[in-house]
Amino acid sequence: QPAVGNGVQLYGLVDNVAGRFTGAIGGVNAQSQSVSKIEGGGMSTSHWGLRGNEDLGGGLTASFELSAFFRSDTGAGGRSDALPAPVNVAADPFFSRASWVGLSSPTWGRLRMGTIISQLFLNTINSNAFGDSMTFGPLPLATFTGGVLGGGTSWTNSLVYDTPTYAGVSATLARSLSEAQGGGNVGARIGYANGPLATSLVWQNVKKDPQTFADGTTANDTTAWQLAASYDFDAVKLFAHVGHIQNKGTNIAPQNVGYRVWDLSASLPVGAGRVLAGYAVRKTSDTAAPVPATVAGGNVERRIFSLGYDHNLSKRTDVYTMLMHDSTQTRTLPVPLRVIEASGNSYGIGIRHRF
Amino acid sequence: QPAVGNGVQLYGLVDNVAGRFTGAIGGVNAQSQSVSKIEGGGMSTSHWGLRGNEDLGGGLTASFELSAFFRSDTGAGGRSDALPAPVNVAADPFFSRASWVGLSSPTWGRLRMGTIISQLFLNTINSNAFGDSMTFGPLPLATFTGGVLGGGTSWTNSLVYDTPTYAGVSATLARSLSEAQGGGNVGARIGYANGPLATSLVWQNVKKDPQTFADGTTANDTTAWQLAASYDFDAVKLFAHVGHIQNKGTNIAPQNVGYRVWDLSASLPVGAGRVLAGYAVRKTSDTAAPVPATVAGGNVERRIFSLGYDHNLSKRTDVYTMLMHDSTQTRTLPVPLRVIEASGNSYGIGIRHRF
Amino acid sequence: QPAVGNGVQLYGLVDNVAGRFTGAIGGVNAQSQSVSKIEGGGMSTSHWGLRGNEDLGGGLTASFELSAFFRSDTGAGGRSDALPAPVNVAADPFFSRASWVGLSSPTWGRLRMGTIISQLFLNTINSNAFGDSMTFGPLPLATFTGGVLGGGTSWTNSLVYDTPTYAGVSATLARSLSEAQGGGNVGARIGYANGPLATSLVWQNVKKDPQTFADGTTANDTTAWQLAASYDFDAVKLFAHVGHIQNKGTNIAPQNVGYRVWDLSASLPVGAGRVLAGYAVRKTSDTAAPVPATVAGGNVERRIFSLGYDHNLSKRTDVYTMLMHDSTQTRTLPVPLRVIEASGNSYGIGIRHRF
Repeated sequence: QPAVGNGVQLYGLVDNVAGRFTGAIGGVNAQSQSVSKIEGGGMSTSHWGLRGNEDLGGGLTASFELSAFFRSDTGAGGRSDALPAPVNVAADPFFSRASWVGLSSPTWGRLRMGTIISQLFLNTINSNAFGDSMTFGPLPLATFTGGVLGGGTSWTNSLVYDTPTYAGVSATLARSLSEAQGGGNVGARIGYANGPLATSLVWQNVKKDPQTFADGTTANDTTAWQLAASYDFDAVKLFAHVGHIQNKGTNIAPQNVGYRVWDLSASLPVGAGRVLAGYAVRKTSDTAAPVPATVAGGNVERRIFSLGYDHNLSKRTDVYTMLMHDSTQTRTLPVPLRVIEASGNSYGIGIRHRF
Repeated sequence: QPAVGNGVQLYGLVDNVAGRFTGAIGGVNAQSQSVSKIEGGGMSTSHWGLRGNEDLGGGLTASFELSAFFRSDTGAGGRSDALPAPVNVAADPFFSRASWVGLSSPTWGRLRMGTIISQLFLNTINSNAFGDSMTFGPLPLATFTGGVLGGGTSWTNSLVYDTPTYAGVSATLARSLSEAQGGGNVGARIGYANGPLATSLVWQNVKKDPQTFADGTTANDTTAWQLAASYDFDAVKLFAHVGHIQNKGTNIAPQNVGYRVWDLSASLPVGAGRVLAGYAVRKTSDTAAPVPATVAGGNVERRIFSLGYDHNLSKRTDVYTMLMHDSTQTRTLPVPLRVIEASGNSYGIGIRHRF
Repeated sequence: QPAVGNGVQLYGLVDNVAGRFTGAIGGVNAQSQSVSKIEGGGMSTSHWGLRGNEDLGGGLTASFELSAFFRSDTGAGGRSDALPAPVNVAADPFFSRASWVGLSSPTWGRLRMGTIISQLFLNTINSNAFGDSMTFGPLPLATFTGGVLGGGTSWTNSLVYDTPTYAGVSATLARSLSEAQGGGNVGARIGYANGPLATSLVWQNVKKDPQTFADGTTANDTTAWQLAASYDFDAVKLFAHVGHIQNKGTNIAPQNVGYRVWDLSASLPVGAGRVLAGYAVRKTSDTAAPVPATVAGGNVERRIFSLGYDHNLSKRTDVYTMLMHDSTQTRTLPVPLRVIEASGNSYGIGIRHRF
């Protein structure tokens, strides 16, 4: 990343992919058709930003980050135009990816204030073979799109404390104030990394009403946890996750529906690139509230399988081709209620460039 | 500020504060409750921007500035989400803080065109102990929020001429074209600085309809003046202001209500920081038009007292804790009309970082 | 342009002009009155952006560009507030000027993906004496404003291939995917440059519904071509264009109206600047669908004559004064239908600064 002086960096990532896509990233539904598109964010959501550190002496450092998502296919702000209603990530606040300032020291850790990536999202993208791909990544899609998870990918109005790393162990506590919008969010993460092994556990409770969509995609009171583990065998790196999302509904419409989420993915070095494969499932045994048939997301079950090759042209630039099979089961209105199955393929060829 | 080449600077400020806040920055009302919040802009409104100078030879310089406010608690654009309706500074244009280009020389001064800070705002923030704090600063709050002042903090579509400084005296003329929205704005400022003493007088008349909210917060025809003086005794720096805002209403609803505004503030160096104290009053003896009881602002009177400590971690970074007591008197609807008193405290601890 | 590292450039242009303007840039109508204004983008539409190249070895280069228009008179995003309804370029996506990533080599050319300037707009602005002036430039105004041309100045969701230049000849193919919004856009351009002579031909068919206004200003199916030639005689550089816009209407309201567009312009070096003169005509012999009398644009004919002087203070900064005479003929509702003539003058003095 380029330095512009004072330790400030201007940085970003532009990722566009051309291909055929079936259904929104929230999941296919029975009406989904395959459409040729150029989409932003095939492997990573496009963004740009400013960040910097200032050495205050005595081991203390001040730091900040301001970062904006944009949809690099149209140049529009926000994360994606691919999510179905009522979610409108096009209405993301400008610096919805990050807007924080904080202090840190090697001794007592780091404390930040503002809009900060959620610990569940950080854990998800740092520990699966597809990274933060919200287009082809089975785990990010199954966890964050088309379901009932609250809190989104960044939390506004939050305080986040990171411990120093000690003997490979690090932990984070996050609190997003409600500011009279629902009940506020709490999250925690603990991780351990040692050579080829990494494992981490994250938990969150989200009660905050989604006044801003970067803040969340549901008004439900939800609790989620995720256990991640990865091992790098050199010939292949394997990732596994198990997790759970409990949806307690809203005050007006309470419910209690739990979803199990699990994922296996692998990254296999081949030449100057990697073959990527992954499979994720989000599934409930409870009775989900029915939705109109035009709503996707798989409120009973969603299964995603992806396979592709990501070729590095340099450290900063890669080209890739990816294929995804998405299938959902949705309990639908009108009566008589029934469960509709849907499935579809998406594939594309893209380029990702970091600066 | 970091240079990026060609004399262009990428600069900004991120300021977040955690605390309890009572009422909007427009002033407490009878329903105001204390709410825990993380807010952007505790001591300075967060912003980023680009600016530069080009030496054209012969003493002539071309310069420009583009600057955007953002609410660093949520990452959203604009100055604040803390003002009550009908003001919506969230709708600030992107570069509403500054968007101008101009020419200057040491001999004949500087002429700029575009969106430029208003002279009244410049005078206010440069001559009180709390600077541009729209969260805790008595003078900025009493002058610019919750009242009837027109013109806001920046004027769009404007021409601004600054004289050179001669024997400590400098002056500025500002004109914002109406472009068929009301009647246009005119402002002037004259200042004198000599060693520890600084004094300045500013006057403005605003008739422009607030098509953009950065342009103003009222459709009223208003005239305001402000006289500022400060003296640095080394052990303490004292600031005093007297001013007046005359509200002539609109063509449809003419009125004639005058507000006196005065302020005393002090900055006391202690260790690596400063103790700040200030008191401001905005008050009318005329009969203000009544408003619903839910509207704050103190259309009869507003009194603000603030006290705090601002500690410098470096030239670029400071941490602070501030306490403010806000009280208002509002003539309210429905009949029988009455004047409601309200008061509340706000306090917080925050960090401000410049880059 | 300043480098910020990694070959990334932060660049932009701020252009403001003060003057009197009659009618919107879409063209005068019978109600147009002269209004004093400060406008952004007198000679070039103000913008800022990030762009960069990365050498990947073997002759291969990765590159990207992100660029945002802004209205430098008010700081608002988007190209202009001067176009009449229903066009609202204020709603331009953030990086609507450019948002692309691509690969290139000297051998096989360049392939880009994302939001990219349209070939017709590129051809227009690169081959007339007034460049990209959407305030005073006869050819840009006659071609892109107030008429029925589809596709706007940038195409979203597009793939663009540029050939290498061989013996002075270069060509470009552009395709904007419909993504289920109408039928997609296709464009092509071929150019030849040799010493003082340059000539180029561009053709486009636009069927895409304008979901984003940067994408276009009409839902009509339109086909356009433009032939440009210029010759630099040293004492004067002459430019000539002929072109045609065929409007096939929409599926619901099919029609078939063709407009001829032609332009002559000249740039005459005088001192440190240039005298600029230009004349453009857009005219139909077909029967255009009538519009309300308040709609401008000249659906029968528009004639624009401009004359001015552009003085260079440096390579990066110029000041200018321009005069434009705009006249239109519009077939108007209500019945009895009639053709209304309108005309008006606009003039201003401005400054343009590049960084």
